Amino acid sequence: VNGVSTRTDLLGLMAAVADVAAALSDRARLQAMLDVEAALADVESARGIIPAAAAGAIRAAAHADGYSMAELAAGAAAAGNLAIPLVAALRARVATTDPSAATYVHWGATSQDVIDTALVLQLQAAGRLITGDLRRAEAAAAGHARRHATTVMAGRTWLQQAPPVTLGLKSAGWLASLSRARRRLEASLEDARALQFGGASGTLAALGGDGPAVARDLAAKLGLQAPPLPWHTHRDRLVALAAAFGIAAGTAGKIARDLALLSQTEVAEACDPPEAAGGSSTMPHKRNPVRAAIALTCATRAPGLVATMLAAMPQEHERGLGGWQAEWDVLPELVLVTAAGTRAAAAALEGLVVDAERMRRNLDRLGGLPMAEAVAMRLAPVLGRAEAHAALAEAARKATAEGRPFADVLAADPAIARVLDRQAIERLLSPGDYLGAAPAFIEEALADYDRDR
Amino acid sequence: VNGVSTRTDLLGLMAAVADVAAALSDRARLQAMLDVEAALADVESARGIIPAAAAGAIRAAAHADGYSMAELAAGAAAAGNLAIPLVAALRARVATTDPSAATYVHWGATSQDVIDTALVLQLQAAGRLITGDLRRAEAAAAGHARRHATTVMAGRTWLQQAPPVTLGLKSAGWLASLSRARRRLEASLEDARALQFGGASGTLAALGGDGPAVARDLAAKLGLQAPPLPWHTHRDRLVALAAAFGIAAGTAGKIARDLALLSQTEVAEACDPPEAAGGSSTMPHKRNPVRAAIALTCATRAPGLVATMLAAMPQEHERGLGGWQAEWDVLPELVLVTAAGTRAAAAALEGLVVDAERMRRNLDRLGGLPMAEAVAMRLAPVLGRAEAHAALAEAARKATAEGRPFADVLAADPAIARVLDRQAIERLLSPGDYLGAAPAFIEEALADYDRDR
Amino acid sequence: VNGVSTRTDLLGLMAAVADVAAALSDRARLQAMLDVEAALADVESARGIIPAAAAGAIRAAAHADGYSMAELAAGAAAAGNLAIPLVAALRARVATTDPSAATYVHWGATSQDVIDTALVLQLQAAGRLITGDLRRAEAAAAGHARRHATTVMAGRTWLQQAPPVTLGLKSAGWLASLSRARRRLEASLEDARALQFGGASGTLAALGGDGPAVARDLAAKLGLQAPPLPWHTHRDRLVALAAAFGIAAGTAGKIARDLALLSQTEVAEACDPPEAAGGSSTMPHKRNPVRAAIALTCATRAPGLVATMLAAMPQEHERGLGGWQAEWDVLPELVLVTAAGTRAAAAALEGLVVDAERMRRNLDRLGGLPMAEAVAMRLAPVLGRAEAHAALAEAARKATAEGRPFADVLAADPAIARVLDRQAIERLLSPGDYLGAAPAFIEEALADYDRDR
Amino acid sequence: VNGVSTRTDLLGLMAAVADVAAALSDRARLQAMLDVEAALADVESARGIIPAAAAGAIRAAAHADGYSMAELAAGAAAAGNLAIPLVAALRARVATTDPSAATYVHWGATSQDVIDTALVLQLQAAGRLITGDLRRAEAAAAGHARRHATTVMAGRTWLQQAPPVTLGLKSAGWLASLSRARRRLEASLEDARALQFGGASGTLAALGGDGPAVARDLAAKLGLQAPPLPWHTHRDRLVALAAAFGIAAGTAGKIARDLALLSQTEVAEACDPPEAAGGSSTMPHKRNPVRAAIALTCATRAPGLVATMLAAMPQEHERGLGGWQAEWDVLPELVLVTAAGTRAAAAALEGLVVDAERMRRNLDRLGGLPMAEAVAMRLAPVLGRAEAHAALAEAARKATAEGRPFADVLAADPAIARVLDRQAIERLLSPGDYLGAAPAFIEEALADYDRDR
Repeated sequence: VNGVSTRTDLLGLMAAVADVAAALSDRARLQAMLDVEAALADVESARGIIPAAAAGAIRAAAHADGYSMAELAAGAAAAGNLAIPLVAALRARVATTDPSAATYVHWGATSQDVIDTALVLQLQAAGRLITGDLRRAEAAAAGHARRHATTVMAGRTWLQQAPPVTLGLKSAGWLASLSRARRRLEASLEDARALQFGGASGTLAALGGDGPAVARDLAAKLGLQAPPLPWHTHRDRLVALAAAFGIAAGTAGKIARDLALLSQTEVAEACDPPEAAGGSSTMPHKRNPVRAAIALTCATRAPGLVATMLAAMPQEHERGLGGWQAEWDVLPELVLVTAAGTRAAAAALEGLVVDAERMRRNLDRLGGLPMAEAVAMRLAPVLGRAEAHAALAEAARKATAEGRPFADVLAADPAIARVLDRQAIERLLSPGDYLGAAPAFIEEALADYDRDR
Repeated sequence: VNGVSTRTDLLGLMAAVADVAAALSDRARLQAMLDVEAALADVESARGIIPAAAAGAIRAAAHADGYSMAELAAGAAAAGNLAIPLVAALRARVATTDPSAATYVHWGATSQDVIDTALVLQLQAAGRLITGDLRRAEAAAAGHARRHATTVMAGRTWLQQAPPVTLGLKSAGWLASLSRARRRLEASLEDARALQFGGASGTLAALGGDGPAVARDLAAKLGLQAPPLPWHTHRDRLVALAAAFGIAAGTAGKIARDLALLSQTEVAEACDPPEAAGGSSTMPHKRNPVRAAIALTCATRAPGLVATMLAAMPQEHERGLGGWQAEWDVLPELVLVTAAGTRAAAAALEGLVVDAERMRRNLDRLGGLPMAEAVAMRLAPVLGRAEAHAALAEAARKATAEGRPFADVLAADPAIARVLDRQAIERLLSPGDYLGAAPAFIEEALADYDRDR
Repeated sequence: VNGVSTRTDLLGLMAAVADVAAALSDRARLQAMLDVEAALADVESARGIIPAAAAGAIRAAAHADGYSMAELAAGAAAAGNLAIPLVAALRARVATTDPSAATYVHWGATSQDVIDTALVLQLQAAGRLITGDLRRAEAAAAGHARRHATTVMAGRTWLQQAPPVTLGLKSAGWLASLSRARRRLEASLEDARALQFGGASGTLAALGGDGPAVARDLAAKLGLQAPPLPWHTHRDRLVALAAAFGIAAGTAGKIARDLALLSQTEVAEACDPPEAAGGSSTMPHKRNPVRAAIALTCATRAPGLVATMLAAMPQEHERGLGGWQAEWDVLPELVLVTAAGTRAAAAALEGLVVDAERMRRNLDRLGGLPMAEAVAMRLAPVLGRAEAHAALAEAARKATAEGRPFADVLAADPAIARVLDRQAIERLLSPGDYLGAAPAFIEEALADYDRDR
Repeated sequence: VNGVSTRTDLLGLMAAVADVAAALSDRARLQAMLDVEAALADVESARGIIPAAAAGAIRAAAHADGYSMAELAAGAAAAGNLAIPLVAALRARVATTDPSAATYVHWGATSQDVIDTALVLQLQAAGRLITGDLRRAEAAAAGHARRHATTVMAGRTWLQQAPPVTLGLKSAGWLASLSRARRRLEASLEDARALQFGGASGTLAALGGDGPAVARDLAAKLGLQAPPLPWHTHRDRLVALAAAFGIAAGTAGKIARDLALLSQTEVAEACDPPEAAGGSSTMPHKRNPVRAAIALTCATRAPGLVATMLAAMPQEHERGLGGWQAEWDVLPELVLVTAAGTRAAAAALEGLVVDAERMRRNLDRLGGLPMAEAVAMRLAPVLGRAEAHAALAEAARKATAEGRPFADVLAADPAIARVLDRQAIERLLSPGDYLGAAPAFIEEALADYDRDR
């Protein structure tokens, strides 16, 4: 617009969230600010504070199309904020149809009232899109939790195989975390649905005794809440919202981490569908986990943005000098990053191609060793823990060194054989029989989800 | 203890929060872990999973005093976490009285179950201390809001004097932000009051079908909630809690920023009492705002710690490799920093020495210029906004250049004189008469506080 | 371009750095990538690896104007990076004039080679603009250091008046820090002037044995250095450069903090010139420190961006999955933020309106108390430190309580009077005579500057 | 010590860096501060500014053992910094042997002079230990680069197998990044080897005209450089050093990421030796990559700490209020984290158990598909790129779908067969023959290392 934009997302990370970007765009910001000015004129006119004709003229002029973004940007640079040139431009425009009405533009308000309230309106719109994506992701995770409740796969701790889990349990974990992220975000959005309206110093003195009533009317007209008092330099609601966005991005990142690891060539248990995976013209076999990469990218970027919102909190007296302004780009950027991450995770979960057979094959590679715990829990009460574990460790060592099945080695140990016969050992080493509470956990997560979707 | 501690707080920042430090200390961590082991044995014994005698022996051995922190730390370094050497030490100790009981120590649990649950217990204890400090700060701010409801002082935007506020309004703003910080922290503490219990891979497979019931009993015994499923690599509850701590620290920082600015030599409107201010032997006049400095220090440190918690979220599969471990020191550090900041802010508010006379004198320095808006609101409907503002700007210029009272210059302007006589101008320039909704805002903030204290 | 841009800088923070924004723009990125492709074809043709005609056709097609940013962005989103659709588009374009040449586009290179090298080229261009601004700021600070070498003003520690300094000394401190920031940035830019060229896995295997020679030629042609080996997942050079940018932003922020504090209504020792200060239509007296606010805004934003660059370092094997992609927007954003901050600081220093008379008046407000140290240093060797300080503290207390000049009270103390007569006391309390090494420090800083400008 | 320490490293992350922790300990801090006081007295006595006897008495009292850390910490909390109670305690102690000497303790200095200079001394000591660890890591990486120059393994991009590399090349990349991290750290340590000495306001006024000379002498005596002027609120040297630490931690983290991925059960190409890997009593087969986990933990923690150092830069006037104090704990913490990370990476590299046979086996799993590029580079000039790639993609699809060797399918394609016979295809698909510049890159990296070790 004015030659200083560096950001057309040529790199493509944000291509999937054009709707969120539109809600956060400068065009939307401009319109939201004009909406605030028009609503203010309306409620002031309804209370007889300004002439009804003025309100009509102001509302008529409050359409973003009539304004030059380039001129406004230049004006904002000179004045220190966007409201100053916008109010001037709105006044000029109103004056062309009703000169006396121009006097009543922005009546009793301060720049930050308009900038903050417009931001709040944009955040509500963008936030709803993100909670929608989280719900999509929840639905997909719930589907996997149901479908794969008994799809056995290796548990992995420290990136080493551990006792088995099921893909359903893993999905239930994703599901529950997504639901928590969404509920937290919904609560924070509600908490941050707060009108900013205080006038020059936060007293609404320019409106005499009418301030609180105008504030209430204005909030109602804009679909916002009227807080007990203005919050120009108390930014905690926005910071809490930022944290909720950051946590949603991190939640998507955790899922993406799992998916990226599962899609490794050597693991290959789950991957993006061919049409979504990044290909390589010189490596036709590759299925790059592009969606997981986007979600991990966003999870990498969110923490620094949340930290900046926190760092900007100690703002000076009645108007911040540096802190407030730092929020202007950082908060929308964080929302966009969160949107890209959560939507990528949703798409990845929805499109996930699962290779249950490969999961089982990977699990079998260690010949039963990850199930040693099952045997240990049976041996310990009989042999005592120390002796049981010594026997198991020796058997594991021998099985690995000699390349023999763990069951064979265990069955050949006389101390073990006294407690468990070959058949019992094999049953204990069967991954599908050592899933404990996994079905119950999946059920609980799904029940929780069903109550709230 | 083991030669690697670098942190004895010699620098003094944490001296005032020794109780919080104690709740977060390694000693408390050790005891909390032992409490978890003892409670686990109790509930398993009550369900007949382990012998009652074993549970008794385990509980008898679960006192931190019996363990060498140095040896445990060395063991933790080798094993990768503290639970491994602690469980071994507990087993050894139990074995001295009841060898067969040693088998049932830590029965069915995994290291992270014990480490996470102990952390949750510590966080609840430390968190309660901080919400207590926030309540102290709220009470002090409420006192100022009441006492100074009509104590007029300069509003300040961009660090420039703006229309007047009252110290009561400023205090009401502090109060409301403190209440929000405290409520958010209470809610996050409640949300994070979650047992961790999943066994090696999160299935509780070692307990067969008893897992969920044991989890419920264990949670109840420890005063925690039993979540639908384990959350070993889903850290959002802790991260949300971290954000709530960070916001509390930022809230304290905002108050401290205001107080530090008010205590400047050239402003001198409020300061720490002599006994609390930092002195200087070579500058006997100095009253260094030590409390504000501590709160600002903590507000500077919190964002990076919160960011680390967020950055650590994408943890691998069933056990994090780097992310989980990053939380170990970072979360307690953040809690301590928050405690120091909020307690310093509370003390600063409680002890605040207010110079109302100086406030008024500072406000009068500009000879009424900051009240220009009051005149403008009256002139604009009559003269039109443009003409009114031109007249005011010219009068302000003249008053500054010629060193004359603003009222004199205004009264001498014929255009203005047609609308307002000298007396009316003086009334408009009287700060105490231009406070708008300040009293109403204070009242609303106090009412909100009274409902919830 | 493609509907997802949210960033037109409507808020105006970046208006002053349109040249830097242009250097970092997506248009510039596209051209830089095409420059890399063209240079690669040239050097490969010169070595007989690809046909000369192919190189000519490729160079002819390497102009950004011929490409649709919207299509490329969409392609990047699908493929996971921008090079894939760009290379395809370049091939298609080359094929329209020389079908056989299309085969040799991007010959032997991988996407990251082109993306990273183009970024390096952009960073060099943008970085030079910023070092230019730092030099501007240095020149302005050096001017103040010279002009105001003896302009006495209050030293301020803990925001309390301390023994005097001069504006020249303060400026010398700014100067030295700006020079260090600029030198560090120059060194980091030089260090990061590194070609990326490694092919699919970093071995340049597709070029057989010619890889290193092609790399050397390509680096030379692009004005870059050829590092010993590719650095696809070793990002330290870029992170070190990011840190240098962040430190420059912080340096500008420190200066801005001082200027914002000096411009407070109650201090008013220095401010922006009227044409640059932000005004307020309803408060005609205000001179908002807009430049300082921008620099502080940027200093608030830089740390989170640097942290993200650091957090993205542990990239996977031969190509990062999330970490690399996080750099794409974050590093240009950091550069832009740094540019805005340093340029605002430069402008603020260049335009600074100094009120030396007010400096002196502010200093005199405490009636000599901040000079107590001067007296103490003379009394202590005679009376002993303890007695000297007790006498001074008592005198300070009395002067403040009784509103008497400090010199009077000191002279009236018999213990002090034995050591210092009234005239000596007054000389000691004269700020202009208690500047110690300030002139020498200024001289050293200016000499250092002169050596290097 | 004083009841507020929460940090005894019970969790074990820092156990391996007890020497670094000792260099950064509060005990070392105390002694460094006393060293500064003693050196100051010495040089002032040598210049006749204070009596020689006083200097002797001060030096005699400057041993940390004589002071109560608990009392000092309590004093620091009250005064706002540690130097105030320490100087008082030192004076009291000196007075017991030479009452008149007590007057000359800390003569002409300010608290920050002593605190900052002591910190600089500690950082030099700790920094040297870390550069030593980086050299260890370099030596280990160089060893692998040499030994495994021809040990072929899969290249991996996006965690998918790509054309082959060698472990030697991977090690050469680690080596070069470690060397750069070490050189950067050495340069930053040298840059930050700067005395702080400015007195109350940075003018050294208390020393009259002797300030600069005393500063030079003091720097020389302490092994530091005397900067052109004091830098109390210009913290860039320390921040640049912090960034260098952070980059070293990130470098270690990148290596750890690779090692953790290589040690996965399903990859198993390299791991910690049995004695160093974390074991599991219930899973005897596990080899948890404890060292990599520590390095990744530290890489996760460093960015937030560096960000805090940057965020603290805009410090007020002549003494920071919150920013300076934030550094006190954060910088030592960052150094310790870096030490733990780099030492863990060094140990991991030194002890690395490599399974070259498994590397080869993993590479062979895809039946030659990752070598498709080698074939493509040969076919493209003959068939044209488009046709060549279509043929390869179809062959890859067929090979995967039908489970046939890639070479078979390729040889069966008539278009390909016209260009390459079966033998040529097999040679092209041989990983060991498709390493391009890998040997040259390794050689260059080793040559660079040899020049500088």
